[in-house]
Amino acid sequence: MTAWTTAESTEPDETTLDRIDGWWRAANYLSVGQIYLLRNPLLRTPLTAEDVKPRLLGHWGTTPGLNFLYAHLNRVIRQRGQPAMYVTGPGHGGPGLVANSYLDGTYSELYPDVSQDEEGLRRLFRQFSFPGGIPSHVAPEVPGSIHEGGELGYALSHAYGAAFDNPDLLVATVIGDGEAETGALATSWHSNKLANPRTDGVVLPILHLNGYKIANPTVLARIPEEELRSLMIGYGHRPYFFEVPDDPQDPAAAPAEAHRRFAALLDEVLDEIAAIKARAAAGDEDRPRWPMIVFRTPKGWTGPAQIDGKKTTGSWRAHQVPLSNAKDTPEHLAVLADWLASYRPHELFDAEGRLQADIAELAPPGRLRMSDNPHANGGLLLKDLRLPDFRRFGVDVPAPGGTVAEATKVLGQWLADVVRSNPDNFRIFGPDETASNRLQAVYEATDKQWNAEFDSPEVDDHLARVGRVVEMLSENQCQGWLEGYLLTGRHGMFNCYEAFIHIIDSMFNQHAKWLKVTNHIPWRRPIASLNYLLSSHVWRQDHNGFSHQDPGFIDHVVNKSADVVRVYLPPDANTLLSTYDHCLRSRQYVNVVVSGKQPAPNFLTMEQAVAHCTRGVGIWDWAGSEELGTDPDVVLAAAGDVPTLEALAAADLLRTRLPGLRVRFVNVVDLMRLQDSTEHPHGLPAREFDQIFTRDKPIIFAYHGYPWLIHRLTYRRTGHPNLHVRGYKEEGTTTTPFDMVMLNDLDRYHLVMDVIDRVPSLQSTCATLRQEMSDKRIAAREYTRAHGDDIPEVRDWVWPDARRLGTVAGAAAGSATGGDNE
Amino acid sequence: MTAWTTAESTEPDETTLDRIDGWWRAANYLSVGQIYLLRNPLLRTPLTAEDVKPRLLGHWGTTPGLNFLYAHLNRVIRQRGQPAMYVTGPGHGGPGLVANSYLDGTYSELYPDVSQDEEGLRRLFRQFSFPGGIPSHVAPEVPGSIHEGGELGYALSHAYGAAFDNPDLLVATVIGDGEAETGALATSWHSNKLANPRTDGVVLPILHLNGYKIANPTVLARIPEEELRSLMIGYGHRPYFFEVPDDPQDPAAAPAEAHRRFAALLDEVLDEIAAIKARAAAGDEDRPRWPMIVFRTPKGWTGPAQIDGKKTTGSWRAHQVPLSNAKDTPEHLAVLADWLASYRPHELFDAEGRLQADIAELAPPGRLRMSDNPHANGGLLLKDLRLPDFRRFGVDVPAPGGTVAEATKVLGQWLADVVRSNPDNFRIFGPDETASNRLQAVYEATDKQWNAEFDSPEVDDHLARVGRVVEMLSENQCQGWLEGYLLTGRHGMFNCYEAFIHIIDSMFNQHAKWLKVTNHIPWRRPIASLNYLLSSHVWRQDHNGFSHQDPGFIDHVVNKSADVVRVYLPPDANTLLSTYDHCLRSRQYVNVVVSGKQPAPNFLTMEQAVAHCTRGVGIWDWAGSEELGTDPDVVLAAAGDVPTLEALAAADLLRTRLPGLRVRFVNVVDLMRLQDSTEHPHGLPAREFDQIFTRDKPIIFAYHGYPWLIHRLTYRRTGHPNLHVRGYKEEGTTTTPFDMVMLNDLDRYHLVMDVIDRVPSLQSTCATLRQEMSDKRIAAREYTRAHGDDIPEVRDWVWPDARRLGTVAGAAAGSATGGDNE
Repeated sequence: MTAWTTAESTEPDETTLDRIDGWWRAANYLSVGQIYLLRNPLLRTPLTAEDVKPRLLGHWGTTPGLNFLYAHLNRVIRQRGQPAMYVTGPGHGGPGLVANSYLDGTYSELYPDVSQDEEGLRRLFRQFSFPGGIPSHVAPEVPGSIHEGGELGYALSHAYGAAFDNPDLLVATVIGDGEAETGALATSWHSNKLANPRTDGVVLPILHLNGYKIANPTVLARIPEEELRSLMIGYGHRPYFFEVPDDPQDPAAAPAEAHRRFAALLDEVLDEIAAIKARAAAGDEDRPRWPMIVFRTPKGWTGPAQIDGKKTTGSWRAHQVPLSNAKDTPEHLAVLADWLASYRPHELFDAEGRLQADIAELAPPGRLRMSDNPHANGGLLLKDLRLPDFRRFGVDVPAPGGTVAEATKVLGQWLADVVRSNPDNFRIFGPDETASNRLQAVYEATDKQWNAEFDSPEVDDHLARVGRVVEMLSENQCQGWLEGYLLTGRHGMFNCYEAFIHIIDSMFNQHAKWLKVTNHIPWRRPIASLNYLLSSHVWRQDHNGFSHQDPGFIDHVVNKSADVVRVYLPPDANTLLSTYDHCLRSRQYVNVVVSGKQPAPNFLTMEQAVAHCTRGVGIWDWAGSEELGTDPDVVLAAAGDVPTLEALAAADLLRTRLPGLRVRFVNVVDLMRLQDSTEHPHGLPAREFDQIFTRDKPIIFAYHGYPWLIHRLTYRRTGHPNLHVRGYKEEGTTTTPFDMVMLNDLDRYHLVMDVIDRVPSLQSTCATLRQEMSDKRIAAREYTRAHGDDIPEVRDWVWPDARRLGTVAGAAAGSATGGDNE
Repeated sequence: MTAWTTAESTEPDETTLDRIDGWWRAANYLSVGQIYLLRNPLLRTPLTAEDVKPRLLGHWGTTPGLNFLYAHLNRVIRQRGQPAMYVTGPGHGGPGLVANSYLDGTYSELYPDVSQDEEGLRRLFRQFSFPGGIPSHVAPEVPGSIHEGGELGYALSHAYGAAFDNPDLLVATVIGDGEAETGALATSWHSNKLANPRTDGVVLPILHLNGYKIANPTVLARIPEEELRSLMIGYGHRPYFFEVPDDPQDPAAAPAEAHRRFAALLDEVLDEIAAIKARAAAGDEDRPRWPMIVFRTPKGWTGPAQIDGKKTTGSWRAHQVPLSNAKDTPEHLAVLADWLASYRPHELFDAEGRLQADIAELAPPGRLRMSDNPHANGGLLLKDLRLPDFRRFGVDVPAPGGTVAEATKVLGQWLADVVRSNPDNFRIFGPDETASNRLQAVYEATDKQWNAEFDSPEVDDHLARVGRVVEMLSENQCQGWLEGYLLTGRHGMFNCYEAFIHIIDSMFNQHAKWLKVTNHIPWRRPIASLNYLLSSHVWRQDHNGFSHQDPGFIDHVVNKSADVVRVYLPPDANTLLSTYDHCLRSRQYVNVVVSGKQPAPNFLTMEQAVAHCTRGVGIWDWAGSEELGTDPDVVLAAAGDVPTLEALAAADLLRTRLPGLRVRFVNVVDLMRLQDSTEHPHGLPAREFDQIFTRDKPIIFAYHGYPWLIHRLTYRRTGHPNLHVRGYKEEGTTTTPFDMVMLNDLDRYHLVMDVIDRVPSLQSTCATLRQEMSDKRIAAREYTRAHGDDIPEVRDWVWPDARRLGTVAGAAAGSATGGDNE
């Protein structure tokens, strides 16, 4: 069988419907058991308080619905041979997904201790929300999952990320009606305007309207059905409504009837999807109106109708642990016993505690089990990228600063070749900023994938039905898509304005935590790193100003486990190329790369760039004025492109004005090198650090971001007391480029003043030079106010070697007329 | 005239329509002038390259549409006497909003330098996107704005926040079709299910479909109109479509015709709103289907159709500066001259450069001008809260640790009284977590405002058409609403799980920047602080585990300007009360308060709590074992409720096991006290800090969050080299409460080991005790694995004074059966 077959006239028979019901009851039983039971998993003896866990932690409300859907999907997957993944949007479906993967055998294959027998059941129950066990939501430990039920809102973005370039994959995605209220989820419905019906897989959204969140009804469950229908049509779907009434007396609420109705609905929906797929295969790639299902069931369905006289099933009271005193009060214990018995476990499990064979037959075979779908363990499918030699794309640097380039533009040319070499497993995501961030060369190799309406080519710039670049003005979507794409075994990157990457701070948290946890789950195979390219950065917001200035994402990232985060600040075009090549080869990391897009001098030849990036930090002999074999008087260090430029200009001033001063120039590409090797795998050993930065000389450090991060990273270093960091301060206003660095005291003149202030021998002798530097700052500021541009001696400054060469003029701080960000 | 009058049969006459057109042309002219011109603002002489700015920075695309709407709103506001605000969602409408506030006179009133004459015009043009001038988007400097055009997505949330409890206010809100793709905006349409038609103002969303973002078409402009209509109906609106075709030959594109059509539409929409308001006033508070307008116009409307042979107006090329070489090429200069002339400035401005009087008459009078609406300068309207004496709500503390309380629950009781005393200018926002965070006592005083469908009271827990609590499962919405509410002169708070507050990291950035900038704008009056209550915090995630653990919001906040951020970690219930009272009284800050919700011991009487919170940091004599007048051997410090508990338990162990050791116990409530007074207004002067923490004794600091923040804050302190911080590490798993602190080495036993390791006299003498502590940790861990609960000696530990008192048992680490977060 292949994907997207139809199943017309194959309505399930009673045996199959019974099997579905058996599976569902078994999954519900196992879910309740996980929440409550410490032992006696098959209720061989009457339930006692000792069988109940001492601390009741977990969530029931969403689980029976998830189990119902899983059981029904099993049938159609098996019948149609349709590869499918299950993305569980509702936050706390943990017990349900664990139960289903246990029932289909995957769980015991991966965790042999949790075996298919009574002892295995006991362990399964005990481990749930238990010290050292597993959490109450779908977590990396759960087979078949790429989507943690921690923070809500990303189910559909993850699902579409998984579906891109997997044309045969069905991604059944349950969206909780609580989750549906989040911003990220609300816009992610529009993903259907980016997906291609021929070359991408199919996301089947199932909006689970169980009506309640923790303590409130949900918005979408409390609007008229016609309004919800309009909303789904407005989102571009064809909605199918399915409802189980919250009234056990209603015939439509009877499980057998619910199974019959839902089985028919699911067949209809999958047939429709198959028809769309067939049309697309035949060449009709117009955006289809994809089906989606509104699945309205009582919250906590099949649980106790009332507890302590209060409505529980069908209310927010079913959200977490409905019988919170099951251990302590006989009344609750009795309700729990009845509840468990209502699933008739003796019909479901055999004498050994194994699922009855006929029910087990509902599961699809092998890798068709949703819990065992290899896409959900993407590392299994991951292939190395075919990476063109980035050295071929390097810029010519006849002398340091001897040429000028827009670093990200240069990177774009290499990325175009990466795209050419990897036409189906590499994507670039961005919130409408790929061109603004100067990666436009990629459009020589590919287009922006788009499946909304088209207009004429004169306004539709590189829009096409299929393309490697995916853009929508939502950082949440870009992050979610990329995560889904990576977690299913592909490669990619996310380019974004530096300031607004904070929008996905919390998504980054969740992904970094996922990576960290999976590092300790042997069956989870390594996936490609999540690569950021942050441009339009803090130092060049010439017209946007203060609102677009925030270099703090680096700080946020560094709070996460050292195992999984890397931060790079390449100072020029060739180092950016070398850095990004490294990032695209890496696994299991989050790589943050910050680089400017404005014209700026190139300092390192490709050979030098490779050596420098390999080391991550190094002394630039050509920029310093050291004498071989002796310690310098001062270390001038920089991390970041603009700080490097200013530090070099300061070094130039120092060598001219204080020719006897021995200045060491250090550049840092890999920020993690600053930490000690005991704290970060990239950290420099103490001896190497001291050799570079000295143990006792003043260090003036010009840094891209908030200065204290450098202090934090170098905290344990011998020379740390001598470290003086200049970085970004929250002082922005509308400025020219040099104005901006002056406002933050990161400018060349101020760095020279810092050197004078911190080298003891200069403090008393250089008062005049210090005054001159201070005067120059005032003059430079005055010039910008009068002329609207930077003072020529700054704007046109070039490194002395390049000056002699005469190849460049006035590119230093980016003198071009024109904006920064759009 | 009062709000919500109807204007049936008052179709505007030709004179009025001409006036509208004149205003629109004038606003467009001023917008183009700001982007391009350095001088010669009225084109008295032929345009030359010298008149053009050296660096062209700014945005044109969205501006003419914004100007069109502003002009038309002027008319209806004037005619109906309708107070209205204008929220500008599109990111870069700066030139337009500056132009309109200049035309209606507000700008010159607030900035007399930018006067109503030719010299004023010159200054107006020059300052835009110029060093030391104003940014290209709507910023705090722009009169009439509460919404910065920095980061996109919050226009509707801000608008509804402004509308809450302002029943007579119209908030005309333009949503850019780029912005509409963001997650935050996509869910914020649902705000209409929370607003009340009688007691709240009216938000009129105007979706500005100009079709393009920076480099791409927008999604909503590229779906069939019927689909967009469905979407808006699905969001709960009645959409009105207005279109100006992108074809100047089309009669419907003629300005006169566009004005006539739009004026009629606006009258119809405002009449409909008035009718809804009348029905609501008569008692029909059912959720109305509020009108909204889809406003489709060419991007850059009225700009050059083509530039360099490429379609510009009606394309993404109109987004920023369409004539980027106006200064350098005569061709572009000529196009610019024609473009400017097309607005016929000589008809618009008189000989002095003042707007022609008849056009100026379009503006409403005084405070009805949208630029001068006092709600947009909320401090003008701000009244102090009437705060009940929080001391009355304190818990009884017969001895330290002598009683147990859930701190946030106690706070809730006071908040209920705050609500009672301030029925119309204080709101509590939360993402479905107000009850989970244990503030449920507020429901004794108020309800959750809800205007979607209702069900029976047994499931609709304190839902009502009007209430002080507003909940929706979107942190973005909560933050946006609260910002809008505060910016329009009211008070409020946002309660949230600590980990997921990162979702609004970037919104916090924007608000903190707004506050910082407004501190330097004299006409902007101080507004109430934005108060967070972060609960369900990192240390109590017993079943959620790792995904719910992140204390890093504090780090993020501290990166912002010291002028505007405050962080508080009250250790118990009475200190939380005192802290929150302080926060609700403050102005122009962001106050972050982190507090647990689990049962925990109370340590300070109300009198002690007030004194302690007033100091922000202090020595707890009762907890230490110092001798008066001598320095201690070691300082044990804590910040945060769980760290304080563990540090006290360590102090208890030390006094029992090492009775000769002089331990000083320090508690920190106000984290900013740790900084030097030169760095933060709350910082302790060096001498005071040294008196508390000593200059040379070991300090063991138990901290709530990531440990390095404490290092950063105390970096300049004399005693910093002796500081050893224990805090949260990224190592979480599913645990019991004590397991969790052990996993992070923040537990009592480890703190005792730290003391032994760092007090020189103990290092050699206490090996046995150290080993015993280490053994206890292993035993405690083993116990949790065996029993699923914390070891009784920890779980039941109480402070010695309370032990003697015998009033409490086993409440220390929260031994209650039951969950942490929902």
